Amino acid sequence: MSFGDFVTQWLPEVERELDALLPAEGEPPSELHAAMRYAMFPGGKRLRPMLALLGATAMHADPRRALRAAAGLECLHTYSLVHDDLPCMDDDELRRGRPTAHVEFGEATALLAGDALLTLAFEAAAHGGGDAVRELAIAAGSRGMVGGQVEDLAAEGENEAKAGRHTIERLTWIHDHKTGALIAGSLLVGAYAGTVGEPVAVPPAVLALLREYGDRLGRAFQIADDCLDITGSAAELGKNPLADLAAAKLTWPALVGLEASQRVARELAAEAGELAARLGQGVADWRGQPRSALDAAVALLQDCATFSVERRR
Amino acid sequence: MSFGDFVTQWLPEVERELDALLPAEGEPPSELHAAMRYAMFPGGKRLRPMLALLGATAMHADPRRALRAAAGLECLHTYSLVHDDLPCMDDDELRRGRPTAHVEFGEATALLAGDALLTLAFEAAAHGGGDAVRELAIAAGSRGMVGGQVEDLAAEGENEAKAGRHTIERLTWIHDHKTGALIAGSLLVGAYAGTVGEPVAVPPAVLALLREYGDRLGRAFQIADDCLDITGSAAELGKNPLADLAAAKLTWPALVGLEASQRVARELAAEAGELAARLGQGVADWRGQPRSALDAAVALLQDCATFSVERRR
Repeated sequence: MSFGDFVTQWLPEVERELDALLPAEGEPPSELHAAMRYAMFPGGKRLRPMLALLGATAMHADPRRALRAAAGLECLHTYSLVHDDLPCMDDDELRRGRPTAHVEFGEATALLAGDALLTLAFEAAAHGGGDAVRELAIAAGSRGMVGGQVEDLAAEGENEAKAGRHTIERLTWIHDHKTGALIAGSLLVGAYAGTVGEPVAVPPAVLALLREYGDRLGRAFQIADDCLDITGSAAELGKNPLADLAAAKLTWPALVGLEASQRVARELAAEAGELAARLGQGVADWRGQPRSALDAAVALLQDCATFSVERRR
Repeated sequence: MSFGDFVTQWLPEVERELDALLPAEGEPPSELHAAMRYAMFPGGKRLRPMLALLGATAMHADPRRALRAAAGLECLHTYSLVHDDLPCMDDDELRRGRPTAHVEFGEATALLAGDALLTLAFEAAAHGGGDAVRELAIAAGSRGMVGGQVEDLAAEGENEAKAGRHTIERLTWIHDHKTGALIAGSLLVGAYAGTVGEPVAVPPAVLALLREYGDRLGRAFQIADDCLDITGSAAELGKNPLADLAAAKLTWPALVGLEASQRVARELAAEAGELAARLGQGVADWRGQPRSALDAAVALLQDCATFSVERRR
């Protein structure tokens, strides 16, 4: 199965789970719950939940067991968008072609809707057990996503868009924290949630391989994102394609050029593919299964890596 | 032991735990970590962590087992203060006599420091197991604290400070959500964290008694708080004593007068005291211990109820 088919298969289930997780719009305080739902629906391909389901699949576990935690990952991602859009942050008025939450509901309600979505993310992750919660908190906190946002804000406008080891390292640090941590974290949360309560916990070496795969995947995704900001058309992106360059943002193409950036992304995707194969072997050994039992899962992980660099968004 | 002595005994341990939990100021991104620590230290009597330790004590468990989760409760409380102070919320420039976090570090960093503290709260709560995380998330989310904040903001300035059943009900709803949910939640998180991994889980009937105790305690605390805003001197409060009345805030004294408010608070504290006695019996039965083994814990819970209404802050 291709990653695209996997997404198509699971998207209705993820949407149903999200709808069940979020309080109804009519439940008081209805303004707050309306704002939470406004930010959440309609959504895109729900990448982080899909990665959580992929993480469970990679453990040879039933992805259905990770559905609630997967929905939590989308809550966490959505909170980060709502807060990122606030006037004191990026001050964006449009998202996916609609007014942002604070434009529609006011700043205070948008701030609190973000807080409530972050909190709900952990309520959902708790269904995956204490390890899933800890993994999510580390990926999302000051040593992960929030730390990356702080550095990203600091880098903005500094206009140090010239090639050099220092800035590539800094950009990689920002990417790894702002985006990569939650992409790898989604896979790990799914792995924990898919196997919670099993008599034998996932071996640390297996988790380490999944994390390495996720690290490569996250970097590839982010570099490809930077490239798409240049190559994508406005219609595909839903925003001005040169917005990042105009804002003098620190990006891969700004530092090393478009072609070199695309090459690095492809190399990372290839590394992720190799790690997926080793991961499949590790899971087969742990499960006492023939390697062939993991063939489909490995192929899916490898196709996801390819997707990360070849997608149009 | 009085609740005051309990606080005195445990305060150094709570401070040590908080210091160990929060990333060092020098760890990058250092501006973010400095802001988190600025909001956290120095603190007051750390009421919510103390209630978590009290919740463990009430279960005849070692409070030490709940220390990490207790520290998480203070992270959660502190995040709520940082976000409450933001310009789009209460727009406060002073807290405990110092500039608020956004005045000191800027709005974006304060917002993100709050987000990171909320996230860290769940990382800490995960040490108490999945039940502790779920309890905390429900108490803090849109059906708890954040929901109460939304309604509190809506009520502010409406100037409906006249006696009447409708507004007392609304005020109680706001108190129960904005403050009460986390007070009761702290006790429950501590009960879960203190007993996590034990072969026999705490019986639901025992947890229900602890929750009822916490509900009464939370209401008593909040009504007493409203009264202190009038009776307290500026020096004791660290803010203008008539600030709430001046802002036409919905408060108990504004609705029913000071004396009637104080009487209701005392009645709630008395109810909490009776619930503590029943809780002690329930825990003794569950533990297979003589009731006398719980005498000290019951006395402590009862003194905490008395403290809630007799404190000067």
